[in-house]
Amino acid sequence: MVEKTAIKAAVILAGCGYLDGAEIREAVITLMALDQEDVAVQCFAPDINQMHVMNHLTGEVTNETRNVLVESARIARGEVKPLSEAKAADFDVLLLPGGFGAAKNLSDIAVKGAQGDVLPEYAALVKAFHAAEKPIGAICISPAVLVAALRGQASPIVTIGDDADGLIAGLGGQHQECQTKGIVIDEANHIVSCSAYMREDRLTNVRAGIEKLVLATLEMARQSRN
Amino acid sequence: MVEKTAIKAAVILAGCGYLDGAEIREAVITLMALDQEDVAVQCFAPDINQMHVMNHLTGEVTNETRNVLVESARIARGEVKPLSEAKAADFDVLLLPGGFGAAKNLSDIAVKGAQGDVLPEYAALVKAFHAAEKPIGAICISPAVLVAALRGQASPIVTIGDDADGLIAGLGGQHQECQTKGIVIDEANHIVSCSAYMREDRLTNVRAGIEKLVLATLEMARQSRN
Repeated sequence: MVEKTAIKAAVILAGCGYLDGAEIREAVITLMALDQEDVAVQCFAPDINQMHVMNHLTGEVTNETRNVLVESARIARGEVKPLSEAKAADFDVLLLPGGFGAAKNLSDIAVKGAQGDVLPEYAALVKAFHAAEKPIGAICISPAVLVAALRGQASPIVTIGDDADGLIAGLGGQHQECQTKGIVIDEANHIVSCSAYMREDRLTNVRAGIEKLVLATLEMARQSRN
Repeated sequence: MVEKTAIKAAVILAGCGYLDGAEIREAVITLMALDQEDVAVQCFAPDINQMHVMNHLTGEVTNETRNVLVESARIARGEVKPLSEAKAADFDVLLLPGGFGAAKNLSDIAVKGAQGDVLPEYAALVKAFHAAEKPIGAICISPAVLVAALRGQASPIVTIGDDADGLIAGLGGQHQECQTKGIVIDEANHIVSCSAYMREDRLTNVRAGIEKLVLATLEMARQSRN
């Protein structure tokens, strides 16, 4: 019997804090669920300045400047590499935690909505995973960025919870409503999504959704190995 | 049968990032474990500047200035109050996640070691919980700060994992070695501690220790209610 090597996951962070970066709790729950399953994890983040810095106590924009890679290192405890170094060939699964940073730093969807563009290195990575049929798990607002990255290449079925404004359809995807503790699986596109803090829901439900998402994403990766 | 009101927990944060603030993962796991048990949570942090700001990618000190309360709001999603407003009478349990911020912002133990002092409002709160025999859960380096706060009032038995330098004894407490996924319970002082990221251990073990700590702290609170 040949022992299998650990599954390898790439996790993309967009800073540190839900108003201008990665949603901290979503990122930590993702890392916890991966470690629980003995997955080898590498975090990545773009080496660019944040769109802006927000005071998370007052909700106001400050005049500070912070770098997405440097701030992401707070969540990753220093173990984060520039997004430009991420290669789909090196990993089995891609995990995309949410937070406004995904819509502000990894894309400009926060500003331009359905007309938003995606950071080229992020789009290239997502397209490479998708083309290789390697599973992608997208959390919170990240399913929208993922759909935008795959525009013209695929029309995935995803959830961002409710989507009253039709953002996902506008970006070229198909939206499916889902409660916070549930997940939506698009088998054909190897994409799993959950809405997490898209709703101001309790942490226990956010956790339940993300844990299911990670397990479903890893199950897809294991099946494709067999 | 009278329905009991939810247990209320105060959680003290020291910023956002393990090198200059609260250890993010420890804080999130604490909040998760409390929410899982239907505990009503209020986060607090001192409204003071951090001792310094560290670049978590390079490990170097920067020339930035950040406020502990404002940065803690990133973990607390805005739901954090000034530490000066925390009253032991309003809560059943006190939870103290770790990170260097506990030793740099809530005390100066990071600089002065066993001669370190504790922020007066933090010391006052800890003393009030202890005097009221309300349980305290201290994580990572926070047991050292807790022992310093109770200096002259009690000599608690706590763990910070290993303590080769004798920091806890120097501060006036008693150290007990403990693995990352374990906890140390000082019944007489109503104090539970675990070492979390005092060791560079895997996240799953850090999580196990903190989850046990939260459950043990809540169990003490429930017993004292009966």
